[in-house]
Formats: sequence, structure tokens, C-alpha cells
Amino acid sequence: MTPLVPMIEYEAAGAEVRAVFDDIMATRKSDWINNFWKVLANDPATLKRTWESVKQVMAPGALDPLTKELIYIAVSATNGCEYCTYSHTASARAKGMSDAQFMELLAVVGMANETNRLVNGLKPPVDPQFEPR
Amino acid sequence: MTPLVPMIEYEAAGAEVRAVFDDIMATRKSDWINNFWKVLANDPATLKRTWESVKQVMAPGALDPLTKELIYIAVSATNGCEYCTYSHTASARAKGMSDAQFMELLAVVGMANETNRLVNGLKPPVDPQFEPR
Amino acid sequence: MTPLVPMIEYEAAGAEVRAVFDDIMATRKSDWINNFWKVLANDPATLKRTWESVKQVMAPGALDPLTKELIYIAVSATNGCEYCTYSHTASARAKGMSDAQFMELLAVVGMANETNRLVNGLKPPVDPQFEPR
Amino acid sequence: MTPLVPMIEYEAAGAEVRAVFDDIMATRKSDWINNFWKVLANDPATLKRTWESVKQVMAPGALDPLTKELIYIAVSATNGCEYCTYSHTASARAKGMSDAQFMELLAVVGMANETNRLVNGLKPPVDPQFEPR
Amino acid sequence: MTPLVPMIEYEAAGAEVRAVFDDIMATRKSDWINNFWKVLANDPATLKRTWESVKQVMAPGALDPLTKELIYIAVSATNGCEYCTYSHTASARAKGMSDAQFMELLAVVGMANETNRLVNGLKPPVDPQFEPR
Amino acid sequence: MTPLVPMIEYEAAGAEVRAVFDDIMATRKSDWINNFWKVLANDPATLKRTWESVKQVMAPGALDPLTKELIYIAVSATNGCEYCTYSHTASARAKGMSDAQFMELLAVVGMANETNRLVNGLKPPVDPQFEPR
Repeated sequence: MTPLVPMIEYEAAGAEVRAVFDDIMATRKSDWINNFWKVLANDPATLKRTWESVKQVMAPGALDPLTKELIYIAVSATNGCEYCTYSHTASARAKGMSDAQFMELLAVVGMANETNRLVNGLKPPVDPQFEPR
Repeated sequence: MTPLVPMIEYEAAGAEVRAVFDDIMATRKSDWINNFWKVLANDPATLKRTWESVKQVMAPGALDPLTKELIYIAVSATNGCEYCTYSHTASARAKGMSDAQFMELLAVVGMANETNRLVNGLKPPVDPQFEPR
Repeated sequence: MTPLVPMIEYEAAGAEVRAVFDDIMATRKSDWINNFWKVLANDPATLKRTWESVKQVMAPGALDPLTKELIYIAVSATNGCEYCTYSHTASARAKGMSDAQFMELLAVVGMANETNRLVNGLKPPVDPQFEPR
Repeated sequence: MTPLVPMIEYEAAGAEVRAVFDDIMATRKSDWINNFWKVLANDPATLKRTWESVKQVMAPGALDPLTKELIYIAVSATNGCEYCTYSHTASARAKGMSDAQFMELLAVVGMANETNRLVNGLKPPVDPQFEPR
Repeated sequence: MTPLVPMIEYEAAGAEVRAVFDDIMATRKSDWINNFWKVLANDPATLKRTWESVKQVMAPGALDPLTKELIYIAVSATNGCEYCTYSHTASARAKGMSDAQFMELLAVVGMANETNRLVNGLKPPVDPQFEPR
Repeated sequence: MTPLVPMIEYEAAGAEVRAVFDDIMATRKSDWINNFWKVLANDPATLKRTWESVKQVMAPGALDPLTKELIYIAVSATNGCEYCTYSHTASARAKGMSDAQFMELLAVVGMANETNRLVNGLKPPVDPQFEPR
């Protein structure tokens, strides 16, 4: 399928977009830009804001970067976002995710989606023990 | 709200349900059963299958139990399952999740839900670099 | 929680709304209107269109009315719509749904939600055998 | 992928389907029928009901037709419906949506999906100020 | 698209996977394995657990197997899982689903998704008549 | 229900949180902070990033602020986020949304959710006419 907006290549990009592209490559120590950023580049403000948010959120912090990629895959598989599943699975593998970890991740995602619906259909009240203190 | 089926208490449960309840408490080293299992107990086969699946999936393996709880919360918050969010947040805290880890988890969940929809609306093609070898 | 628009009671309704309310009660052989229709009545055209669609879609046809209610619950539990789950569970029970059928329904809904996400995360290609002839 | 039911072309359609197809083309001042209606035509009653509902709902009213197309895209991108995203983006462009409006629309859709999940994970109570009077 | 993990063919499979594949073919009285199981086979424990759960859940019980397939399609179409929609539509047709039943099923799925959102936006309180006794 | 993290009130907040709270009130010309920001304040970096993103995204641009609020409600009702639906309905009303506009908005949201699922179940191919040039 054709993307719904053109993909802006580095060569054709204006200064504002190039600055973001440069920062993406520098941060990731890579020499290419993936298609997600090329379509976002149609709106430089959204490109810049989204990249800065992703960079901040995915940086090492209280959770390590691999765990964050696993969470990203969990959400993307729950929502059925194909591009996101491919791109974040690739990122997670680059950060060391093993085949066994990937399969276990999906097993948890599957169970959570199953029990979420058993709960939605049966409506047990939240146990007082689960209320935050 | 009233649950859509009665909650089966241990005292009123048959042998098959009691055996599952006993295994839940033994596995978790706890002395109570949360409401999710009490509503499932209306169908002992589903109760037993679901518990054995959850026990297998959430056991330590290639991913540690806390990481699995984080993934469970990520799915539950994405789906908007209130009971599941409360119960797995409590479980994650019992396994050591800090406040900073919880907030970072939700930041990742939020970003993933945002970028999933930017992708859905713009439809960038999957980069060949992301294809599994 | 307060509904986001007023609930229009029969006594306060105009002729267009009353005509729909009368048809709902006649069709269902009941003497009351549930809250869903009372909030929709703020827009008589939407009330009329929605009721006529529901009446047509839920009428006996190639599928019997109980099967249709089961499908409605399956969708509502998947989406986490609380009001819809309560109202269609009540309708299904009124049409003869047994406790065993309800529990089995939710077991199928749970499994489907689980395997949907295993598929989303692993992306098996559609087998040629599954393509419609 | 093959559609799951045959596509009914105008030439092969019965009188009931042709009447709907004619009305679609007359209403839209176009000379072709898109594939959505051709698959729906396998069930003439559903075709007719769905078209009449869409025609009523998307007509100018308290909201203008372009705003309605923007809302349709917002829902379709949130749900990840590819066909719907392509078809309603084309409709919105035909009604005058600019590239800047499309990118801003998706920025809002992305933010809403993000904050929806921050809310689902943190569960702030609804402020009394937000309750309808 | 390439699947995100290799597809494990029968010939290359270990004993544990072959045992599950044999049971799938024996239970279904078929002589081939569809791609879903081949990707799951990368994790024999998940393959075995998922197959045994599906076998138990989809067996005749309080609901007949065709009704269960209809419910599976309803969930898969709601979630937008393409593979699942193709595979369970094929299964339902093999169990006797007519074209008219398929179209009616989707009409119900569509209406349920529509009214779920009317409810989400208007928030009518659950009528006391719908509360389970 | 208790929120899953404490609500940080202005009086108890640190300088970084107070600065964001001050900017929220100044931007909105209001004198109170709603609970969403109070729970986010447990992570000042997420509070600041989310507020700045919302402020940028919801500002007047190619789309007017009321249209943006309508889109926000459309997404929130699709996802079933109760808090978000209440808060953005209140915002939209403050920006001039009429009752008729609100009802029409939800009618479009409902139709889009319905036709999204008819598409998911029937899988019509994207018409070449809908491909972007």
C-alpha cells in the first residue's frame, strides 16, 4: 500500500526536519531513518515533538531499555499495529531480546488479553486488598 | 455493581474448585482468594484451565516475574480493564515495582498507544531492515 | 456517574420519541424503556434510526435471537462496555441462556482475544487453504 | 487478500441492490461504487440499512461534512481499520482537507490515545467540575 | 510479510511439537497444520498449552461448535485480526455456516460496536432491571 | 475507586510541578487543576512532557480548538475511557459545543465503529481510487 502522505527523504528535507533526522541517527548510532519518521516529517512540529518524547520515554531510567521495548511490543500486539510490531521487535532484538523472551512476552500478552475479557464479562468487584494504600 | 455471576466462596465450593483454590493459595503463599477466581469458579473447567495457564505463563522463565507483571499492566491499561489494572498493579508492587517504575511503565504504554495510531493513520511501509532474517 | 445528557422520560418526550418508545415496548412486550434509549432520545433521528436498525438486525433470521445476543455479549465484553454487557446478558438470560452457556461463551471470548494477540505478535501468513473460493 | 465474500458488480446485481447503488452514485455525484458496498451487497437488507444510515449520519447538520469525515478518520485510525482509513482520507481530501489539517488530526488522535491510557493506568476520579449539570 | 519467527514444519519439529501436531490433525481429521501452530511451535510449552485450551474451549458443550466459531469471528472482526478472521471463517464454513448466517453475524457485530460507543459517549446508568439477581 | 497513585495537590507540590500547574491554569485561564494532572505529577518529567504536548497539539492551527475537542471525544468514546469522555465533553461544551453537535458527533463515532467491523469481517480490497497520488 502507498503511505497516506509522501515519505520525506533526508535529501529533500528542510533544515528543521534534517536536524531531527540527524539527532535520531546520532542517538541510535545508525546511518538511516526508518519510514515512520519520514511520514511524520510532513509536519515538522509533530516530528520534533514525537521524537523528543520517544527519546525521553525510551531512555534508561527506572526501567531498562529492553524492558521498555518489551512493553512497546505488548501494546502494539494488543492493538494489532503491524508496523509497530515489526519495528519494535527489531529494536528489542537489537537490544538483546532472545527468542525465548519474545515467545514468553507474547504468552503473557495473550493471557492478559484473555483474562481482561473474562473480567469484562463477569465483572468481579475490585478486592479491597488491591486498593492502593 | 453486582458481578454477573455469583462469587463462589471456598466454604460453598465443591472439591474441584477447592483444589484449585488451594493451589492458588499455596503457589502465592497467601491465605485468600481474589474475586476473579471466585467468579470463574462458576465453571470449574474454566477455572482450572485458566489458573493452570496463568501459573505456567507467569512463572519465572526467560523473563522474570516482575517484568511479566509490568507487561500485564501494559495490556490491561491499553484495554481499559479496571479490575485487571488494580490487581496486577498490586501484584507488581508486591514483587518490588517502585513508584518510578510504575510511572515510567505508563509513559511507555502511553507513547506506544500514541505512535500506534500515528502509524495507523499514515501507513508507512515496513522497512526491509525490520524484516526478520 | 451522571449521564452526559439528560434522560428523556416518556412523560416529557415529544411525539416522535414517544412513537419509538411505544414501538420498543410493543416489540419487546414490556412496559418500560431502558436508559440507553432515554439518552438517545436527545436526538430523535438517532433514536429512531438506531432502534430500527437494532430491531432489524436482532430479529429472527438465519441466526436465532439467542445466538445474536451471545454475539452481542462477545463484542461488548471484548470492548469492555459495561452497560452493554449488563443489558445484553439480561436479554440473553430472558431468551433462555443458561449459566453454563454464559460461562462457555466467555471462555470462547477469552480464547479468541488471546489467540488474536498471539497472531498479531507472530504474524503467520494466511494459509491458502483459508482463502475463500 | 481475497475478500471473504464475492464482490457484487452492478451488472450482476438484482434490482434491490441496483437501487441502492444508484442512490449512492446519485448522492455522491460519482459514477462508480467502491468495494465496501460491493461486499455488503451480498446481503441486500444490510446494504440498504447501512447506506441509509451512513447517508443520514454524514449529511450536513449541526456538524459540517468535513468535520464528520475527520471524526471518521479518527475512529478508523484508533481501531486500525486500513480500508476505512484509506477511503475516508480520500473522502476528506475530496471535501477539502489540507495536508496540514490531516497531520494535525492525527496528532490529536495520537495524544488522545496516549492520555486515554495514562488515565486507564492511574485512575484519577472524575472531577465534580466535569459532571454535566 | 515474513512472520516474526520461523515456521516450524512437521519434518523439522522435535518430539514434543510433533505430538501436538499429531493431536491437532487427529482431532480435526485433517492432514495438514495451519501456520498459526507452526509459529507457536517455536515455544513448545505455549504450543501445547494453547492447543489444549483451544481444544477444550471449542469442543461441544453447552454451546455447539458452530456457535463457538461465530463468536470467534465476532471477536476477531471486532479486534481486526486478519489471520483469525480468515481462519475462523473457514472453520465456520466447514461446520456449515451459510452465507446468510455470515452476513447476519457481521450485521450484529457491527451494531454491537456501534451501540457500545453510543453508550461510552452518553454513559446511561445501568438499569436496576439488568442487575443479576 | 482510589487512584493508583496519590493525587499531588498544588500546596504539596515541588517547584517543577508547580511551574506546570501554573502554566496549565494560565493557559486555560482557570483557577484549578483537574485530577489527571494531579496523578501525573507523581512523575514531574511525564507531567511536563504531557502538558507541553497537549498544549501544542490542542492549540489553534489548521484545525480549530473545538474540532480538536470533538476528535478527542471520538477517540475517548471509541476506547471507552470514562474520565477522558467526561473531561473532554466538558471542554468541548466550554468551547461552544451544542447538544445537537454532541449527539451528531456520537452518531458518526457509532457509524464508524460499525463500518470498521463490517470491513474487518468482509475484507474488501482498497479501491485504487482511494490510493493517495
